[in-house]
Amino acid sequence: MSLIVQKYGGTSVGTVERIESVADKVIGWRQKGHDIVVVVSAMSGETNRLVEMAKAIQEQPVPRELDVLLATGEQITIALLSMALEKRGCTARSYTGHQVHIRTDSVHNKARIVDIDDKRIRKDLDKGRVVVVAGFQGMDEEGNITTLGRGGSDTSAVALAAALKADECQIYTDVDGVYTTDPRVVPEARRLDHITYEEMLEMASLGAKVLQIRSVEFASKYGVRLRVLSSFEDTATGTLISAEETEMEQALISGIAFNRDEAKVTILGVPDQPGVAHKILGPIADNNIELDMIIQNVAEDSTTDFTFTVHRNDFDKSLAIMKETANKLGAREVTGDSKIVKVSIVGVGMRSHAGIASTMFETLAKEGVNIRMISTSEIKISVVVDEKYLELSVRALHEAFGLDQLA
Amino acid sequence: MSLIVQKYGGTSVGTVERIESVADKVIGWRQKGHDIVVVVSAMSGETNRLVEMAKAIQEQPVPRELDVLLATGEQITIALLSMALEKRGCTARSYTGHQVHIRTDSVHNKARIVDIDDKRIRKDLDKGRVVVVAGFQGMDEEGNITTLGRGGSDTSAVALAAALKADECQIYTDVDGVYTTDPRVVPEARRLDHITYEEMLEMASLGAKVLQIRSVEFASKYGVRLRVLSSFEDTATGTLISAEETEMEQALISGIAFNRDEAKVTILGVPDQPGVAHKILGPIADNNIELDMIIQNVAEDSTTDFTFTVHRNDFDKSLAIMKETANKLGAREVTGDSKIVKVSIVGVGMRSHAGIASTMFETLAKEGVNIRMISTSEIKISVVVDEKYLELSVRALHEAFGLDQLA
Repeated sequence: MSLIVQKYGGTSVGTVERIESVADKVIGWRQKGHDIVVVVSAMSGETNRLVEMAKAIQEQPVPRELDVLLATGEQITIALLSMALEKRGCTARSYTGHQVHIRTDSVHNKARIVDIDDKRIRKDLDKGRVVVVAGFQGMDEEGNITTLGRGGSDTSAVALAAALKADECQIYTDVDGVYTTDPRVVPEARRLDHITYEEMLEMASLGAKVLQIRSVEFASKYGVRLRVLSSFEDTATGTLISAEETEMEQALISGIAFNRDEAKVTILGVPDQPGVAHKILGPIADNNIELDMIIQNVAEDSTTDFTFTVHRNDFDKSLAIMKETANKLGAREVTGDSKIVKVSIVGVGMRSHAGIASTMFETLAKEGVNIRMISTSEIKISVVVDEKYLELSVRALHEAFGLDQLA
Repeated sequence: MSLIVQKYGGTSVGTVERIESVADKVIGWRQKGHDIVVVVSAMSGETNRLVEMAKAIQEQPVPRELDVLLATGEQITIALLSMALEKRGCTARSYTGHQVHIRTDSVHNKARIVDIDDKRIRKDLDKGRVVVVAGFQGMDEEGNITTLGRGGSDTSAVALAAALKADECQIYTDVDGVYTTDPRVVPEARRLDHITYEEMLEMASLGAKVLQIRSVEFASKYGVRLRVLSSFEDTATGTLISAEETEMEQALISGIAFNRDEAKVTILGVPDQPGVAHKILGPIADNNIELDMIIQNVAEDSTTDFTFTVHRNDFDKSLAIMKETANKLGAREVTGDSKIVKVSIVGVGMRSHAGIASTMFETLAKEGVNIRMISTSEIKISVVVDEKYLELSVRALHEAFGLDQLA
């Protein structure tokens, strides 16, 4: 008998019918003899409905009150799911974040969990009840309602799993696991049975939108075994995300991630001097533009070239800021390109195997793909290429690293 | 400077625009120097939306979970109203019943308030904030969310006013006060400036649906000055409901109430013996049918006749039950009539003035209205008449007691 924390997202509980089928799923696990804590999101559409009402009153709603408003979304779901469980003869108890003391800091709209009091939940579990907890929400020290920000329900589930020392935290979503790459681009993409926290972090941040990054970090920190599963299919075992398992023969590369939303800005011929990076990137950050890749090359004439990528939506603004900066610093030129994409290979196997980068570059060269930028980390190599080469690059790399072979 | 508790019902906060105009109203009172605590209901339509979802899952939703669900309705309103206040530069804080410890018993769906901890609210008032509290909801000793049942927001407001020793509790609604009778029946009906708790209780229970009975009982018990006001008009002073004010020249009759939803059942020739009333009325109560008027006459032949009235919806069922009972008891006959109405005159002046009943009967006789039943209490006389005489009776009585004269 295990203790399992399950999380069902907004799509999985999007209608009364879907809530009923979640109840069936939960009872299936109960019947296998497991203790179950369920964490749910707001029904899909509900949060938008609430935000619209708030914005009709205040373009920037007071953060404290926005949290009071949004927290109702999950509260509706916990009540309905508990009813569906009770109807099936399964005793259940619903709780808001407030009721089970999911303590957070006081940063409204993006609070962080600091502590969970697991006493009340344990008492219910001991009585054989399924416990249904509202995700995404908590309360601060003074009892104010807080929310964790987008995707926060994943984090709620992982935090509860950590507090309860659960055997597994299952995240139910509309895909049945983590894939070697996007199956819409490479039909041969395979579901991974297992992936490490680190790999998942690199995959997630690169655009594989299965899990919230914060929840993976949290799981990694507390050693919570995470499993991504489909809420619409019954058979799949999903993908397990855990610490590296050394006994397994590790594949070199676990997956290929890509990001279509990138744009790059280059500033050429900047007089090189201490602090120049800050002078260039500071104004970008000041405008709340998030930087992704950053590359600096020192040219021969003691000037330096900078290239960085931003979200495509921020391209025009970034370019304008950079032209201003170039004037101030006496740089030669500013160029930009919004028709680029980022392709990355991710795998912990990189640590122990040489030659992976050259396989990547060689593969792309063979296909005639021109690499515009390169950036590497311990378990990831990213390249920027022209938008038109995205599918070609991903498919070629997927094949070159044998990801289409059965594990 | 006074402390005022204001309550706005579902229609008054039914749209974002109406919430904005409630905010304007609240700020108007603030600017007169008053401290304000606002109690709100769910936006009209919201509770029905939630109940529909629940019923799609369970025809009889688990009471505990129904409360968790329904409590979101008011939580949405408190957040939106606080935003509207903040937008106007008025600092505000919203609280759920749980957060300000509106302690109730554990009878889900119709809990009763047992205690309110006013500390948190006082602290906010001291800081110059408007406090916005979710009506209709509380929590029990174990921290479970409870709701007070239909109309519970009025009771929340009165209970808060009692706990805070507020100078006045204002109930904003879609009428501008309590009238001598329904203006749709008697166009000359006048708004009463003042009415006693007792009179209001008799008026409310007889169909003048302005205030929840329980909230009036509560106000009477704790001596809270209640005022009914229109949320859509600015000028009116509404109707004040308080203990009897002896210095005022009290009108004989304050108002005329009526109820169109009555039906009567008569059982004739029941052998008279101890406990017969219980034998007749017990089966009705066992079927959860609420009795209104009950009349017993002893006939000459040591049998007895019983007549009672019930809600028209319960007429067929009551008649069937009574026929069964009649067989068991050896009664002569059972008759019934669902085309009757009840008309009542209400007024504390009755206590000190004789002849009021005879004025009533004389007035009806003059109009050719046949009285079918009579029932009296200390401050009320009710008669049952044929449905077709309702308007005629009310208008005649309204004139006879001078209720159309300016006070």
